[in-house]
Amino acid sequence: MEKTRIEAFSDGVMAVAITLLVLDLSIPIARPGELAVQLAHEWPRFAAYAVSFLVIGIIWVNHHTLFSLLRRVDRPLLFVNLSLLAVVVLIPFGTALLADNLSRGGSNAKLAAAVYSAISLLMAVGFSAMYVYMTRDGRLLRPDVDLAAARASRLRFGGGGIVYLALVGVAFLNPYVTLACHFALAGYYVFNRLPVPLSPAAAEEADS
Amino acid sequence: MEKTRIEAFSDGVMAVAITLLVLDLSIPIARPGELAVQLAHEWPRFAAYAVSFLVIGIIWVNHHTLFSLLRRVDRPLLFVNLSLLAVVVLIPFGTALLADNLSRGGSNAKLAAAVYSAISLLMAVGFSAMYVYMTRDGRLLRPDVDLAAARASRLRFGGGGIVYLALVGVAFLNPYVTLACHFALAGYYVFNRLPVPLSPAAAEEADS
Amino acid sequence: MEKTRIEAFSDGVMAVAITLLVLDLSIPIARPGELAVQLAHEWPRFAAYAVSFLVIGIIWVNHHTLFSLLRRVDRPLLFVNLSLLAVVVLIPFGTALLADNLSRGGSNAKLAAAVYSAISLLMAVGFSAMYVYMTRDGRLLRPDVDLAAARASRLRFGGGGIVYLALVGVAFLNPYVTLACHFALAGYYVFNRLPVPLSPAAAEEADS
Amino acid sequence: MEKTRIEAFSDGVMAVAITLLVLDLSIPIARPGELAVQLAHEWPRFAAYAVSFLVIGIIWVNHHTLFSLLRRVDRPLLFVNLSLLAVVVLIPFGTALLADNLSRGGSNAKLAAAVYSAISLLMAVGFSAMYVYMTRDGRLLRPDVDLAAARASRLRFGGGGIVYLALVGVAFLNPYVTLACHFALAGYYVFNRLPVPLSPAAAEEADS
Repeated sequence: MEKTRIEAFSDGVMAVAITLLVLDLSIPIARPGELAVQLAHEWPRFAAYAVSFLVIGIIWVNHHTLFSLLRRVDRPLLFVNLSLLAVVVLIPFGTALLADNLSRGGSNAKLAAAVYSAISLLMAVGFSAMYVYMTRDGRLLRPDVDLAAARASRLRFGGGGIVYLALVGVAFLNPYVTLACHFALAGYYVFNRLPVPLSPAAAEEADS
Repeated sequence: MEKTRIEAFSDGVMAVAITLLVLDLSIPIARPGELAVQLAHEWPRFAAYAVSFLVIGIIWVNHHTLFSLLRRVDRPLLFVNLSLLAVVVLIPFGTALLADNLSRGGSNAKLAAAVYSAISLLMAVGFSAMYVYMTRDGRLLRPDVDLAAARASRLRFGGGGIVYLALVGVAFLNPYVTLACHFALAGYYVFNRLPVPLSPAAAEEADS
Repeated sequence: MEKTRIEAFSDGVMAVAITLLVLDLSIPIARPGELAVQLAHEWPRFAAYAVSFLVIGIIWVNHHTLFSLLRRVDRPLLFVNLSLLAVVVLIPFGTALLADNLSRGGSNAKLAAAVYSAISLLMAVGFSAMYVYMTRDGRLLRPDVDLAAARASRLRFGGGGIVYLALVGVAFLNPYVTLACHFALAGYYVFNRLPVPLSPAAAEEADS
Repeated sequence: MEKTRIEAFSDGVMAVAITLLVLDLSIPIARPGELAVQLAHEWPRFAAYAVSFLVIGIIWVNHHTLFSLLRRVDRPLLFVNLSLLAVVVLIPFGTALLADNLSRGGSNAKLAAAVYSAISLLMAVGFSAMYVYMTRDGRLLRPDVDLAAARASRLRFGGGGIVYLALVGVAFLNPYVTLACHFALAGYYVFNRLPVPLSPAAAEEADS
């Protein structure tokens, strides 16, 4: 099975999900002279938008990277990919929940931050599952991918999951710190690319 | 007529429809300390989201499979495909209707489950119509498709319709059972792929 | 300039617009036992959805046909196409306006039907403008397009505009008749394809 | 890294964002006989829709032009492009804010116009950043792009930013004038294309 249409469908879902984040920015009409106060008051909405946009953007970049390792896709991979997309589509929901509840404080804010972190955890699990499936054997991979190196990087790949699990716990202590951690993690992923386990010859060529 | 743009348009519609399902998860702002209770109370919303995501995902996979049999498309097929997409776009509506009414019980819950099942029935009818049209003769099919085998599998293809028709009836008995059946059916379709009637030589090559 | 990306962008906008029509089907939560009554009462919403889905579908098919005549696009065509897309995006607005006002009757229903017809008129004008621009000379057309025949079919091409202009008037007499006429017109366009002015040799080949 | 998928993802985001503008046109149900008055009263909504549609359309055309200069993309460019898309997705938010507040007048209208202008300013900054990064050296550019000419046009490229900065100020004087200026600027950009710094030989060929 060729990978063109699965990439196009995945790109479509991620493009719509990232753009629907703007709906979380809808702000009730302010009373005369109070728009500035209201916009300032709604800062968690803008912060949640920024983090989630970055998160979906990174998911897209990583999806792009993983699929660039593939030579073709099979039916199970379609459904592993579909599960991943189901989690991507939950992100605007988690973002809205966080935006609605963060500035209200109390246990609702904590729970919302925990749900947001749990969605990120599911995402990390989904990516790990896809990577494990892809590297089960060499049948789906491009010939220049180093299978042994790919399998060796499975563990490092799943590392993000531990951090997101920890953030589910942190959420019940302090939801603001949780949001800041999501920001920091997203920043980390911008600068730390996924390992691409090419065979030495292919890697040399890709670098040149 | 080439099939590139009709595939791209169909992928776009299905990607938007599957992502719009997230709008059904929007939850009113909870009173202090009651977010957990509210999220638990809204479980039909999450169940409906999960089923519908899987359903649209399977539709996409099946659409992908059917179109892979085609060599080219003609104008009637464009409109048969458009009818199918019109039903796909109804799925977020049916999902919202089910999510809004299931936990309220009574005749509204039953009717909502029946409408949801009727949309699935329309979908099965649409797919059968497309398959019958595609296999009317060999003009649109790839040369390696076995036309006789393709026509023979028409009946098996339409089998899903009977089940969905039954579910319209079940809905008036018990809407929860109906939702569970939709889950089970979706799971069945994940593991039971559409028959792809390739000629023996081509099938051998595709398996290798 | 190549036409791949302009086609992809146009397909994207039309796919999103056609899918957003489902938002017009959102129905307030019914009182116990009254969902059937409410769904029946909301029939103009479903009728408007069906017409508008068909209309955007036909627009997509015609867009596809016109672009298949092109060898390349230039900058003015990008903006003519953008104007056309701006009208496509108005269709979900017109549909919502019609769905909200039709069953309420009175002058609001008439005005809503007139606005809906005016959007269709704009669409016909936009398509005519694009066709006139495309057939200004042969620079953008494929070599096998018969320029003289293409220019000759300009008039026939613009015929739809007259009908939609008439429907703006009919709307102030009877909005239901207007909706029925839009249905009939859409049906007409399903069966009457756009003239494709290929040179005799090319047309023969396309038919075979 | 090939540019196909980044173009497809960007086209998807821009297509969804431009289509979501229609949500800003949603109008509350009018009292009997008052739809005409209400539609007239909501003119800022339609004006904001028109400007924003044109603005996103121009962004798409310019994005198309810039990417046509590229031979390939690298990871930093993915994230520069993602920042640009994050600003595109803010446009429906800014449009809704302007549409909600313009006709209400007072300081809210002024602030909304300033926010709208600030989003345009961010867009100009984002495009300049992308252009500066692309023309840092010739590694990402097509071989027929004249690097020296490309670097020389950086300054002219950033000129729009100054104008949008001025419009942030103008907004606090008169929000209607600000909206009119955005219209005029969009019109200017329709007729004044981005400089495409091809080498003399390539430019000659492109013109023919």
